[in-house]
Amino acid sequence: MKRLRYAAFGTGYWSTLQIPAWNEVGGVELVALYNRTVAKAEKIAERYGSPKVYSDPEELFKNEQIDFADIITEVPAHESLVLLAAKYKVPVICQKPMSFDLESCKRMTETCEDAGVPLFIHENYRWQPPFRTVKKYLGAIGIPYRAHIQLCYGGAEMFTVQPFLATLKYVHHMDMGPHIFDLARFYFGEAQSIYVQTSKSVPFIEGEDMFTAMLKIGPTICICDIGNNLENRVFIEGDKGWLLLDKENVLHVNDGTQTTVIDTKTWHKYDWISDYDYNLHGGDCIQSIVSCNNHMLESLSTGKEAETTSRDNLQTMKLVFASIESTKTGQVVVL
Amino acid sequence: MKRLRYAAFGTGYWSTLQIPAWNEVGGVELVALYNRTVAKAEKIAERYGSPKVYSDPEELFKNEQIDFADIITEVPAHESLVLLAAKYKVPVICQKPMSFDLESCKRMTETCEDAGVPLFIHENYRWQPPFRTVKKYLGAIGIPYRAHIQLCYGGAEMFTVQPFLATLKYVHHMDMGPHIFDLARFYFGEAQSIYVQTSKSVPFIEGEDMFTAMLKIGPTICICDIGNNLENRVFIEGDKGWLLLDKENVLHVNDGTQTTVIDTKTWHKYDWISDYDYNLHGGDCIQSIVSCNNHMLESLSTGKEAETTSRDNLQTMKLVFASIESTKTGQVVVL
Repeated sequence: MKRLRYAAFGTGYWSTLQIPAWNEVGGVELVALYNRTVAKAEKIAERYGSPKVYSDPEELFKNEQIDFADIITEVPAHESLVLLAAKYKVPVICQKPMSFDLESCKRMTETCEDAGVPLFIHENYRWQPPFRTVKKYLGAIGIPYRAHIQLCYGGAEMFTVQPFLATLKYVHHMDMGPHIFDLARFYFGEAQSIYVQTSKSVPFIEGEDMFTAMLKIGPTICICDIGNNLENRVFIEGDKGWLLLDKENVLHVNDGTQTTVIDTKTWHKYDWISDYDYNLHGGDCIQSIVSCNNHMLESLSTGKEAETTSRDNLQTMKLVFASIESTKTGQVVVL
Repeated sequence: MKRLRYAAFGTGYWSTLQIPAWNEVGGVELVALYNRTVAKAEKIAERYGSPKVYSDPEELFKNEQIDFADIITEVPAHESLVLLAAKYKVPVICQKPMSFDLESCKRMTETCEDAGVPLFIHENYRWQPPFRTVKKYLGAIGIPYRAHIQLCYGGAEMFTVQPFLATLKYVHHMDMGPHIFDLARFYFGEAQSIYVQTSKSVPFIEGEDMFTAMLKIGPTICICDIGNNLENRVFIEGDKGWLLLDKENVLHVNDGTQTTVIDTKTWHKYDWISDYDYNLHGGDCIQSIVSCNNHMLESLSTGKEAETTSRDNLQTMKLVFASIESTKTGQVVVL
């Protein structure tokens, strides 16, 4: 099969996870890099091997024959790069969050749809093996009446490796919010209302890093918790039974008659990942980057619709912006 | 020390826990029983030994020299009995919830205060050894930013032994709500706002048995969950560390440097408790009835203020009624 040629836009910290993840997936070829500060792009080009480096993104689109663009820049650059890709009819993958502004998310989605250009949002959490296994077993517990999804964001260190996060007023609404709301949608569908409370435990950041949302999704009362001293954990109570994904990534599924125990830890440590990054993000998170890339490559190759198109992710982003509105007003936001 | 003479009002199911719990505490003497249906009172009198039985509560107050009244009737009878006790200047203990109506709670509290008669609310959950141990170790985790208190109400069977619960529209707001809100107040103080969602898993009851509240208490985001397939569990995240009371009643306390493990299961099975009741309520709950009675007896004997006076419990009941308002309106109630 023909290898797909791609260019990566943005050569910051996340490119050091995303580019080797593409190498892991295989079937792709990095042909060019763009970065505003070209010296940074040159370093990444040297590290991962890229024939060309650009400081002007439109020059890249003009000069290079690429099958898709992978946008890994900081969030404010997403829209202009996606619109450029649409202009040059290049399928495009964009990191989450799509944008800091809902109207911008809509423009990105509609412009690409109008241009007939696929736009994928790189929402990786639903590709983490533990979370994906939860989805697989949801049917066993009957109607889910109550859910509690709890994510650890990695603590103060996460603000050191991604310093722009420390400048965000609505940091978890924007950074972890897309992940946790996407999981809630993945499990239960579209929410009817959302209410959020936040609090602060890391003093040197602009925003509040403790985040709790309560969503109403059909019959499901869904609590979404993001915190510092939390471990990832999912508990869902159904009318027939319950399931618990515990901090050891072991899934316990009770179908009303018996409890089955499933070890969801199916990943291994890739040799391209440093011990530091492996420990900071977790092996499940690193695996999900590979799996998410693989899923989008499959969609690009076969035309089969991906799970997290921008049209789909727009629903996640609506929850993100509703969560900000709830925090601002202190009230429930009806969707 | 002189044994305190008491009369019990109400000889339903709960009297079969409360009267033997008094015998366990000791230092008290059951001198009379009241019940609307006198045949029931006679059975209980025979079982536990009571010299007198009344079907008219005022006759009891007129005829008997008692040091306190213990009100264990159904909730709608609470107010008139408490007001009678106030009239006859008899200190009075009343089961939770104080009343189904906030104005009634206020009348009970104010009438007893005006009469100089102590009114205690028998709020036992904070006396359960696991929950009490959590309070003891709260200081170790620093500022509590997030709390998750989860209680199991016992499932469909609880509606069989207490059939009036099955008739309540706001069943957990009224039955388990007082317990869980009292725990939240016990740990963190007075709430500034509350938001509630409910859902239904037991089809044959009037109300909704799945209950989740989100309280804001100073810096603490406090989730209160009541459900059917839940186990009792408390998780609190602080700025220094965290604590977890797990389903085995083991408390894990992390103070930021190390995790200490404390087995809170300090109770034993009393010989007066049936296997059925022990399994339905749990040994910690049965123990808490004894400890709560003991605490109120100490207050009666020494004059030292009890933890759950009616004045204190009025704050818990305000949360109960705010939780109903939130359920009715679908909105956050600011307190």
